[in-house]
Amino acid sequence: MHLVFNKSNLLQSINIVLKAVPSRTTMPILECILIDASNVIKFTSNDTELAIETIVEGEIISGGIVAIDAKIFSEIIRKLPDSEITITTDENFKTTITCEKATFSIAGKSGEDFSYLPSFEKKQFIYLSQFSLKELIRQTIFSIADNDTNKLMTGELFEVKENILTVTALDGHRIAIRKTELKDSFEHIKVIVPGKTLNEISKILTGGTDSDVRVFFETNLIAFEFENTIVVSRLIEGEYFKVEQMISSNFDTIVNINKKEFLDCIDRSTLLVKEGDKKPIIINITENELELKISSFLGSMNEQLEINKNGKDLMIGFNPKFLMDALKVIDEEKVDIYFVNPKAPCVMKNSEETYIYLILPVNFNAAY
Amino acid sequence: MHLVFNKSNLLQSINIVLKAVPSRTTMPILECILIDASNVIKFTSNDTELAIETIVEGEIISGGIVAIDAKIFSEIIRKLPDSEITITTDENFKTTITCEKATFSIAGKSGEDFSYLPSFEKKQFIYLSQFSLKELIRQTIFSIADNDTNKLMTGELFEVKENILTVTALDGHRIAIRKTELKDSFEHIKVIVPGKTLNEISKILTGGTDSDVRVFFETNLIAFEFENTIVVSRLIEGEYFKVEQMISSNFDTIVNINKKEFLDCIDRSTLLVKEGDKKPIIINITENELELKISSFLGSMNEQLEINKNGKDLMIGFNPKFLMDALKVIDEEKVDIYFVNPKAPCVMKNSEETYIYLILPVNFNAAY
Repeated sequence: MHLVFNKSNLLQSINIVLKAVPSRTTMPILECILIDASNVIKFTSNDTELAIETIVEGEIISGGIVAIDAKIFSEIIRKLPDSEITITTDENFKTTITCEKATFSIAGKSGEDFSYLPSFEKKQFIYLSQFSLKELIRQTIFSIADNDTNKLMTGELFEVKENILTVTALDGHRIAIRKTELKDSFEHIKVIVPGKTLNEISKILTGGTDSDVRVFFETNLIAFEFENTIVVSRLIEGEYFKVEQMISSNFDTIVNINKKEFLDCIDRSTLLVKEGDKKPIIINITENELELKISSFLGSMNEQLEINKNGKDLMIGFNPKFLMDALKVIDEEKVDIYFVNPKAPCVMKNSEETYIYLILPVNFNAAY
Repeated sequence: MHLVFNKSNLLQSINIVLKAVPSRTTMPILECILIDASNVIKFTSNDTELAIETIVEGEIISGGIVAIDAKIFSEIIRKLPDSEITITTDENFKTTITCEKATFSIAGKSGEDFSYLPSFEKKQFIYLSQFSLKELIRQTIFSIADNDTNKLMTGELFEVKENILTVTALDGHRIAIRKTELKDSFEHIKVIVPGKTLNEISKILTGGTDSDVRVFFETNLIAFEFENTIVVSRLIEGEYFKVEQMISSNFDTIVNINKKEFLDCIDRSTLLVKEGDKKPIIINITENELELKISSFLGSMNEQLEINKNGKDLMIGFNPKFLMDALKVIDEEKVDIYFVNPKAPCVMKNSEETYIYLILPVNFNAAY
């Protein structure tokens, strides 16, 4: 095999496939990137849950296949001068990487036992801009559960109804829902995508509004195709939670508040909460004023914010992190928050319900 | 006590004194910043080796003294809006910090058992620009030893002879020497300053060329005075190494090389060295060419660089980190390297000897 690349193209492609190289594995071959230069140059990585294939710009002087340790390969390319890079292999898969006057030699593998991408039919699909998909993930992914006690909670529900894509994440304390309008109507789809897949996809997406991703749905598989890259992931099997019925429609207190002021105020209060400590913040809503209070062994804080209020006065406690996570991904300057009572979840949403964030309150000592 | 500050002044002063707040201590009072508003507002911190005092701009509405936990104090100020900040204390040293509509309450201490700065006489001193001192430290500090087996090696020798300040650091494998011309001639001084002190000082110095530092020398103490701040540190006692006699003046091979090319080339080679592994790089100097070679279980690399050479051919091994540390702080585009033989140290220096970096070679297998 004898290939010639331009450094920046090569590095960009390596960075894409690196996302599916497992950091720990019992199968050493998966720590490699497969370089397949049969007719085009294709890089493949596969951690058995997630697989990525990308076509790399470069010149094939003679074809071939080799698997190279991903970590050392990426480190070498990163440190080479920004110039033409040549990769050659001999009959024992010994790989030589040359750039200007520097020459690296590393051991390669045949790649015989490497798993290529699972094949899929490309029948059922939707498309949306890279930007939209990346935003949907960013605005919901923080609400998935970070441990495996309930597998369903480690993924996000992707549901397509006509021209609306709804993405839902929940972890037992909160729910995040985002909706986006698609450019076309599609068949009804309802699948649970692993959070890890979505995290990696969102790192690879360049985020352009003018470049689309095609998302293919297949039994047990989801595939994302954009530019020269295909990412294939297993789905999580099971029946997702009935989220609609968890969100009340009768609210006794509605608050309209400046998002940045509220976020900064909660952020300050968290200084008094040590990690692992479950100290709630107390929110006291009265006529046109929201008072935030917290008290811990480190000290106490209180702050008043101006609000518009409809409905009853209310005192309610929250885990500050959950409020902040939601506020951080809301783009609007002002946000509406809907309350029922101190035991029931609050809901942040806009009138079109393109976003809904539900957060469970925390009990607090009445003598606080 | 009742004080009023502007947030950015307050935060800047806190950041200065934080450098002498110990992260672990058996004396809880040292985890505090002492606020003394007797006639001016002074902040003091003291970790028993290093003490810092800075005068803070602010308004004294009523005077007083209080010691406040440095960590929580700095975190609160950092998170407050960029506005006017009021600090008040009551008779129990309970401290209230107010900014706009936010109010924090934290416990303070009397500060009775706090150690102020040691007093010193301001007799013997030198002065130089903040920039010069900061550069001198940056260009030598990497050569001090990072463990305590030889206390002398954890500090740097500061020696003044007439109008020349020479700073020396060594760790048993290498020596770094930097000289700078002072604006005046001073008495002869020779002291060993702890590396930790120099690290912290160099973080506080703003680095201006038009703002001077006065450095005071006293039995067992060194003090740095600049702007509103005084930093006092203990010295390391003992007789420093005779460095002059370690540097040969008879060299058999002299190489002139492009610094950046050499640095990048060594940097690439370190990819093949895992942390903790003592794999040397081999440098083979022949007519007008320097070849760098390395080989490890990860692979091998070689690269050729153009040089100007005077004297004999030579093959010599080095710890790549030591070469890189020195090359990184040399500002010149081209550097002269002086060699004797594969067993003797090499020396990088300029003709005026404002810098001298000596590095011991490493044995390597001849059959490499």
